Amino acid sequence: MKGFEELSKEFSKRFSINHFPSHPSSLYEPAAYFLGLGGKRIRPVLCLMGNELFDEINPDAWQVAVAIELFHNFSLIHDDIMDRAPLRRGMPTVHEKYGGPAALLSGDVMLVVAYNYINKISPSYLQKVMHIFNKTAMQVCEGQQTDMDFEMKEEVSLQDYLQMIELKTSVLLAASLQMGAILGGAGERNCHHLYEFGKNLGLAFQVQDDYLDAYGDPSKFGKQVGGDIVSNKKTFLFIKTLESASPSQILEIKDLIRTNPPDKVEKVLRIFSLCGVDSWAKELREEYLSRAMRHLDEVAVLSRRKEPLLQLAKFLVQREY
Amino acid sequence: MKGFEELSKEFSKRFSINHFPSHPSSLYEPAAYFLGLGGKRIRPVLCLMGNELFDEINPDAWQVAVAIELFHNFSLIHDDIMDRAPLRRGMPTVHEKYGGPAALLSGDVMLVVAYNYINKISPSYLQKVMHIFNKTAMQVCEGQQTDMDFEMKEEVSLQDYLQMIELKTSVLLAASLQMGAILGGAGERNCHHLYEFGKNLGLAFQVQDDYLDAYGDPSKFGKQVGGDIVSNKKTFLFIKTLESASPSQILEIKDLIRTNPPDKVEKVLRIFSLCGVDSWAKELREEYLSRAMRHLDEVAVLSRRKEPLLQLAKFLVQREY
Repeated sequence: MKGFEELSKEFSKRFSINHFPSHPSSLYEPAAYFLGLGGKRIRPVLCLMGNELFDEINPDAWQVAVAIELFHNFSLIHDDIMDRAPLRRGMPTVHEKYGGPAALLSGDVMLVVAYNYINKISPSYLQKVMHIFNKTAMQVCEGQQTDMDFEMKEEVSLQDYLQMIELKTSVLLAASLQMGAILGGAGERNCHHLYEFGKNLGLAFQVQDDYLDAYGDPSKFGKQVGGDIVSNKKTFLFIKTLESASPSQILEIKDLIRTNPPDKVEKVLRIFSLCGVDSWAKELREEYLSRAMRHLDEVAVLSRRKEPLLQLAKFLVQREY
Repeated sequence: MKGFEELSKEFSKRFSINHFPSHPSSLYEPAAYFLGLGGKRIRPVLCLMGNELFDEINPDAWQVAVAIELFHNFSLIHDDIMDRAPLRRGMPTVHEKYGGPAALLSGDVMLVVAYNYINKISPSYLQKVMHIFNKTAMQVCEGQQTDMDFEMKEEVSLQDYLQMIELKTSVLLAASLQMGAILGGAGERNCHHLYEFGKNLGLAFQVQDDYLDAYGDPSKFGKQVGGDIVSNKKTFLFIKTLESASPSQILEIKDLIRTNPPDKVEKVLRIFSLCGVDSWAKELREEYLSRAMRHLDEVAVLSRRKEPLLQLAKFLVQREY
């Protein structure tokens, strides 16, 4: 077995080819530019790992892995347009560099190219894999729309936030594992448990992301600590605080959002801590991680074949950066 | 055989169902709104006619027809965003009514739903049909990008304009016929000739469209006559005029574009006529129509089965509205 590190390297190498025709360059250059910005390539590697769990890697899993990464990048290009984000991985976003229309269209064409890769796999798997791919793509769109709807709302319940994260982030991780497993000949039951493993892992990952944004060690965390607080983002911590804070604390938070003072991060963090959401977040993260692990346990393959996924899960969720 | 009228009615009825989940309505309502604006549904009916040419209609042809119409509408929603168009069929465009982000995302999800319909057909045809669908979708994106690139250019050659129209408009008509034919069991040679029939028909259609915009009878033509001239659009007539006009006529046109006087349409039309582009356009239209007909002749089925396509072609190209 190759495991995360080796598959990750091999995928990055295979993915670095040119996926697009050369003409018109005004359409395909923006697409290639965005892929060149890099990324952790976690989703395609999960597809490969889900495949390797059952057997030697099926060559079709590489095609699906590429399709998944192209889909993910398509969604990022379009999200950046919708969020008016100027930067992605420290570089100008596609719409910043090439304008909105070219960004929109190069995202569209990237999605079509993703389907082109899906279409390369054996006809015996095509319909099943495409069914999951389509369903997941719709859910990711639903998650993005729900996230935008939340920006307009003053209050969002924890339940609704969870569902949004599940759609926007978790289902693609889950489906990547599942599509890999299907190409490895996995049965229904194994596919189900792998999917649930991925889904809960995604939720644990997002809790950790929200936690690090508030409580991360600035020397280790890649982004500005407190960035979510500065931009008034609804996170696990923020929503839980609104649910458990006293009326006066809620007034104070709303006041901080309205007046935006220089010590806003510090003051909001103090309320977070008074409400105990820091330890709550750690518990919630562990809860999702253990749910994920219980589903991985249920996957009927030799324990040692699961070792790479187990290590990756711990790494993703317990990381400090 | 059912022919255009009957298939058109039956398709409109089948297409009028709800194609989307209900939640989140902020994502799916804009998509459903746009489909509700109607349209001639020519592409899906061409798919059905291409299928009926060879046999009774294969139920899979209805799925592909729906996918084609959804794809076409996806591309219109996104084109409207890129062109900042306020109206479509006399009604507010999706981005005007629901905002840019919702328009972008509901277009995206519509494309995914189109692939969902493609995925319903028999696995024996799936890979082949999806290959054509993907290739055509890429070409349509390339055509739209090229069209946008042309807006920035002062001069565009007739050759380049033709190629753009082929990508933006013709290939989808051609591919619709071809996918229908494949589902009817047509062989390579018949598919090729039907594709070429559709491609040339599309070019003839666009020449007629450009011609009617300048020379249409205002009492019959649905849009404002001279609209392309007002908006300085590069059309067959405009490009041919720049290629054949005298230096002083070219100066006059460029001056009219710059100063935009109230009698601009009248004056540009006079130069068009002096350059003879009105009769040239009629000849060009007939040339493409006869090329299309020659390819239809080559399709090896009984002549009477081709009758509906022949009638439709004449109607589309010789229409005065």
